[in-house]
Amino acid sequence: MTGYSTSMRIRLPVVCVVLEVILIILFGVLVKYDHETDAKGWHKYIKNHNNKSQVENDFYYRYASFQDVHVMIFIGFGFLMTFLKRYGYGSVGFNFLIASFSLQWATLMQGFFHGMKEDGKIHIGVESMINADFCTGAVLISFGAVLGKTSPVQLLIMAVFEVTIFAINEYVILNVVGAKDAGGSMTIHTFGAYFGLVVTRILYRPELEKSKHKEGAVYHSDLFAMIGTIYLWMFWPSFNSAITAHGDDQHRTAMNTYYSLASCTLATFAMSALVNHEGKLDMVHIQNAALAGGVAMGTAGEMMLTPFGSMIVGFLAGTISTLGYKYLTPILNSKLKVQDTCGIHNLHGMPGILGAIVGAVTAATATADIYGDGMEDVFPDMAAGDISASQQGIRQAVALAVAMAFALVGGVLVGFILKIPIFGSPPDTICFEDQIYWELPEEEDDDHAEMTRVRTVEEKPLNA
Amino acid sequence: MTGYSTSMRIRLPVVCVVLEVILIILFGVLVKYDHETDAKGWHKYIKNHNNKSQVENDFYYRYASFQDVHVMIFIGFGFLMTFLKRYGYGSVGFNFLIASFSLQWATLMQGFFHGMKEDGKIHIGVESMINADFCTGAVLISFGAVLGKTSPVQLLIMAVFEVTIFAINEYVILNVVGAKDAGGSMTIHTFGAYFGLVVTRILYRPELEKSKHKEGAVYHSDLFAMIGTIYLWMFWPSFNSAITAHGDDQHRTAMNTYYSLASCTLATFAMSALVNHEGKLDMVHIQNAALAGGVAMGTAGEMMLTPFGSMIVGFLAGTISTLGYKYLTPILNSKLKVQDTCGIHNLHGMPGILGAIVGAVTAATATADIYGDGMEDVFPDMAAGDISASQQGIRQAVALAVAMAFALVGGVLVGFILKIPIFGSPPDTICFEDQIYWELPEEEDDDHAEMTRVRTVEEKPLNA
Amino acid sequence: MTGYSTSMRIRLPVVCVVLEVILIILFGVLVKYDHETDAKGWHKYIKNHNNKSQVENDFYYRYASFQDVHVMIFIGFGFLMTFLKRYGYGSVGFNFLIASFSLQWATLMQGFFHGMKEDGKIHIGVESMINADFCTGAVLISFGAVLGKTSPVQLLIMAVFEVTIFAINEYVILNVVGAKDAGGSMTIHTFGAYFGLVVTRILYRPELEKSKHKEGAVYHSDLFAMIGTIYLWMFWPSFNSAITAHGDDQHRTAMNTYYSLASCTLATFAMSALVNHEGKLDMVHIQNAALAGGVAMGTAGEMMLTPFGSMIVGFLAGTISTLGYKYLTPILNSKLKVQDTCGIHNLHGMPGILGAIVGAVTAATATADIYGDGMEDVFPDMAAGDISASQQGIRQAVALAVAMAFALVGGVLVGFILKIPIFGSPPDTICFEDQIYWELPEEEDDDHAEMTRVRTVEEKPLNA
Repeated sequence: MTGYSTSMRIRLPVVCVVLEVILIILFGVLVKYDHETDAKGWHKYIKNHNNKSQVENDFYYRYASFQDVHVMIFIGFGFLMTFLKRYGYGSVGFNFLIASFSLQWATLMQGFFHGMKEDGKIHIGVESMINADFCTGAVLISFGAVLGKTSPVQLLIMAVFEVTIFAINEYVILNVVGAKDAGGSMTIHTFGAYFGLVVTRILYRPELEKSKHKEGAVYHSDLFAMIGTIYLWMFWPSFNSAITAHGDDQHRTAMNTYYSLASCTLATFAMSALVNHEGKLDMVHIQNAALAGGVAMGTAGEMMLTPFGSMIVGFLAGTISTLGYKYLTPILNSKLKVQDTCGIHNLHGMPGILGAIVGAVTAATATADIYGDGMEDVFPDMAAGDISASQQGIRQAVALAVAMAFALVGGVLVGFILKIPIFGSPPDTICFEDQIYWELPEEEDDDHAEMTRVRTVEEKPLNA
Repeated sequence: MTGYSTSMRIRLPVVCVVLEVILIILFGVLVKYDHETDAKGWHKYIKNHNNKSQVENDFYYRYASFQDVHVMIFIGFGFLMTFLKRYGYGSVGFNFLIASFSLQWATLMQGFFHGMKEDGKIHIGVESMINADFCTGAVLISFGAVLGKTSPVQLLIMAVFEVTIFAINEYVILNVVGAKDAGGSMTIHTFGAYFGLVVTRILYRPELEKSKHKEGAVYHSDLFAMIGTIYLWMFWPSFNSAITAHGDDQHRTAMNTYYSLASCTLATFAMSALVNHEGKLDMVHIQNAALAGGVAMGTAGEMMLTPFGSMIVGFLAGTISTLGYKYLTPILNSKLKVQDTCGIHNLHGMPGILGAIVGAVTAATATADIYGDGMEDVFPDMAAGDISASQQGIRQAVALAVAMAFALVGGVLVGFILKIPIFGSPPDTICFEDQIYWELPEEEDDDHAEMTRVRTVEEKPLNA
Repeated sequence: MTGYSTSMRIRLPVVCVVLEVILIILFGVLVKYDHETDAKGWHKYIKNHNNKSQVENDFYYRYASFQDVHVMIFIGFGFLMTFLKRYGYGSVGFNFLIASFSLQWATLMQGFFHGMKEDGKIHIGVESMINADFCTGAVLISFGAVLGKTSPVQLLIMAVFEVTIFAINEYVILNVVGAKDAGGSMTIHTFGAYFGLVVTRILYRPELEKSKHKEGAVYHSDLFAMIGTIYLWMFWPSFNSAITAHGDDQHRTAMNTYYSLASCTLATFAMSALVNHEGKLDMVHIQNAALAGGVAMGTAGEMMLTPFGSMIVGFLAGTISTLGYKYLTPILNSKLKVQDTCGIHNLHGMPGILGAIVGAVTAATATADIYGDGMEDVFPDMAAGDISASQQGIRQAVALAVAMAFALVGGVLVGFILKIPIFGSPPDTICFEDQIYWELPEEEDDDHAEMTRVRTVEEKPLNA
């Protein structure tokens, strides 16, 4: 039954090389520098602008946001998932692998659906790099649901399809429906979460109980995970504001996110102590639910929600998320057979929906009096008089439905593809375990082992 | 004696929820977007400026500084304190909690004392976010003194009062006394350190010796702490320059801090080896004293101190700080009953005073010839001819006295409040210990335990 | 034989203090603020510019790059080397020490060779800080070769000489030969790698086998190392673009590096699985070879290589580097007696040469049609019509030869200096071991030890 072998010796190199060669060929055929990155193009471009300084700044504003988002994708997601005691290599390593693939593939898919120019080429610059990282974020969210239960080949295959579906979904939401979603409550979080949840449902492992003892943390693995948490938390203002309009939009988005997250953190600590019968805090809640305030600000962040409103939303998000970890995850697992390793339903799913709803309500109550000339940046169609605030609100609600639909249908499709038994998926008994795909060092260093031995010997006489 | 229960089941949720609800109400009543973050306001504002580019940049300069400071507050302080072998969750977790609270509360308190507009509102933007993070830094410094000996409820209560006193002290120093302190040698470091030292003195635990065996590091906890150290060290140039005037001020502050820290690091390694009878380096020194050069540059950083001067100050700061850890901390502990877990007296106290003195001397020797037209940014009152350089020097000295006075009086007051036995403070025997407030994972992973068992069995025959 | 004592009690303080005092004196005599950091100078400078905004931005663009580079130098290099199970303190600690020294010394050496002004002074600002960090990077690369086998005094002595030789080499390559090397494929990576390899060859330890059991990782040390890897990987676009011309140059360099690294990561995973007989991934490859795509983009990054070209180069770099770790390092060790602890030959040596070659070829094929007005920024001499593209290509090739020559000759010289037996070098039996230079905490925390004991006792009856 070679189909059930988990060896990556041939499969992983073949998949990596084939994918990368396809990427390289497609980049060679389809991609060129945009006016920002092209030597000739840039110099032509700035000649036509009377304010070179302004134009140059556009790059730097975006580039600074890009670096912050980049940190979230690689350090944030990568280390957040290292909480598992024996899956640290897989968490940070596979995150690294599938993110590296996804950002390249996303450049093509997003370029294909959004930005093909009349020369039949995809023109790329800093903004496309941010968008590629955003799309990668959705893949990494889904990764959280199947963490520890999939081979790197399965993850790459998942990424191929998820990126593609993401790009279509994003195009529909932003360009067809005409909704706003700068920080991706719908396009990134809701989509990524429900996609991943459906995938893990299809990949349901009835015997996973046999790996249960490995599905927890040890002391230091929780601290590694906190590195991920804190980085996500700190840079979320940059994430939500990365592609909003310059000026007040970007300032406001960052600030709303900042206060939402701070409020969310207090709610998370409160709920975590409350639901524990000894009043002890649970690291799983702190690591995850404290971030829900950023997720929930992904749509309304750029709107005139006020810090007051943001703090309410953050508080709600932290509360819902913590309660989800405590009460909903076990039910999803036992009743719906959704084995959600990282609890992405609590961190990205419900807070994403909350964010979409807050966005819809906030949009529906927007007035010219509140936004003034700033309306154009936030709601261009309303500013142009094409639609009313209620209509924008409806668009937002439709967008949520679209995201859910793409996630559910896409997830089912991809889940079944991943079930094909040639991708080296681990058996139920060896999940959450690095040793299947990684060369591991000896369990501990020699000195320690020696010391343990010596101690044992010393203790003997007492018990002889 | 329910007063001595350490359960957080009711207390922590009540305190968190009450505080957050108060914050939300006050934000709702008192806070609004400033011209930078308001959709209408921003567009009005830029219409009145002939250089939109210049105005926009102001945000980005500040925002980049903000993100660097934010990293220092959450990763820097959070991980610096993870050195304790069994208090990693508490270090990074409680840091996260009280910082999230403090930055919200600081927005209100600093807004109340500094920036109430004629409409009776506090207008907030990116600069207020930096200032809120700065104030949070002082609270986290004080946290370092009581680390491992306080409940999260006590810490939140401390933060409520400390933020308030900080805001008054800051207002007096900057607006009444008219001193300069952009990087907070006095307002942040000296104030935060002596406040915390007095609090820990009032909370003196005569039986703390019983927890002594937990007050150290293990190998990996020291590496986690180094993450904190290095982040603080790297971003300190951004910290000290975050709110200085744009242009030469900001450039110079960053550069002075950079060279001060580099010099300080060499002094720390030198002293650490020198004071150890085997010439071995002590991680406590490296983790902490190497940062003293940033603290000592908090006042004079923006002045024309020259890199030469900065390096001398950094060298002194590293030397004083290392010697403090070696010789002064034990004396403070045994003679003055100041139990200073992180040695904040050495990292923030003495270097803060050094920074204040360097600032006073540098200000007193400022001349129009050295500063030229740049005088206006650094010493506006001197540039306006209202005061002489000596008078500015006296202001700086007075400011140091003010900071000390607020710290000492405030610390006594808050220390006695924290003694009220309803906040769930841990007993002397279970300090520096996460298990009292946190759900802990099993001590180690099963494989390891199994291995230990197997080894034991194997060794037996040899000793039978 | 006091010459063989490894105590740092006198030696390290003496060397640190003497070096820092020399630095302080030279800074006092030779260094002054440039127009960017000087209060008077800046205000004069901006008066002569009609666009203050543009001028101010220059600082901020550079400063943001500086902070990213700074993170790579201290967190990136520092943590990358923590993979060794018992050398975490030394890795991050000595990295901290020698980087702090090197950046000060580099300021002087680079200022001396490149930038002495007519007043006989070295004028410093943000750009000189980036260059000082770059030079420090080369020293840290060399550190990787001798990691675990040298005393901190030896490392400081090495840094004194290597920084000096680096500055001369850099001057020759950029100003005499006239090659381009913005990201330092030649000046930083090739030079640093071969310098370090020659040094470690001269310091060959025939009995190193006795420390072999300590030359590996444990589970958590590999995760600490991944922090370093990911930070280097994420910020490499900023590294390569830090000192390129503003505008398209900088945008393009960042983007080329981004795609090169992503492609390199897939190649690394592919090769790592392929060369392992069980198809398991090797953390050493992931930690190191995945970065080769950044190294290889150090010269051509700013050229019109296209993302397509960058991805090919990244793929090659990852492949070569992984194969190097697997097959070449053991041969270098056994046949050529080059004991390269971190495998810098694979991460910096070969990819550096690859980068130099790619740079030469790309330069040689540059045309006015491709670069347009942007030619001036990338190839000023070609834009001025002074040389042809082929001539620029030859310059690039010559520069590689120059870098190799300086590295080899310099490495031999410095290697023999470091052999002088007064610097406290560790014996062959105690390499890769922190305890020789650091105060170490107890092996593990008491609770754990206690638990081990208890378990042992419990198991006894079963075996009695």
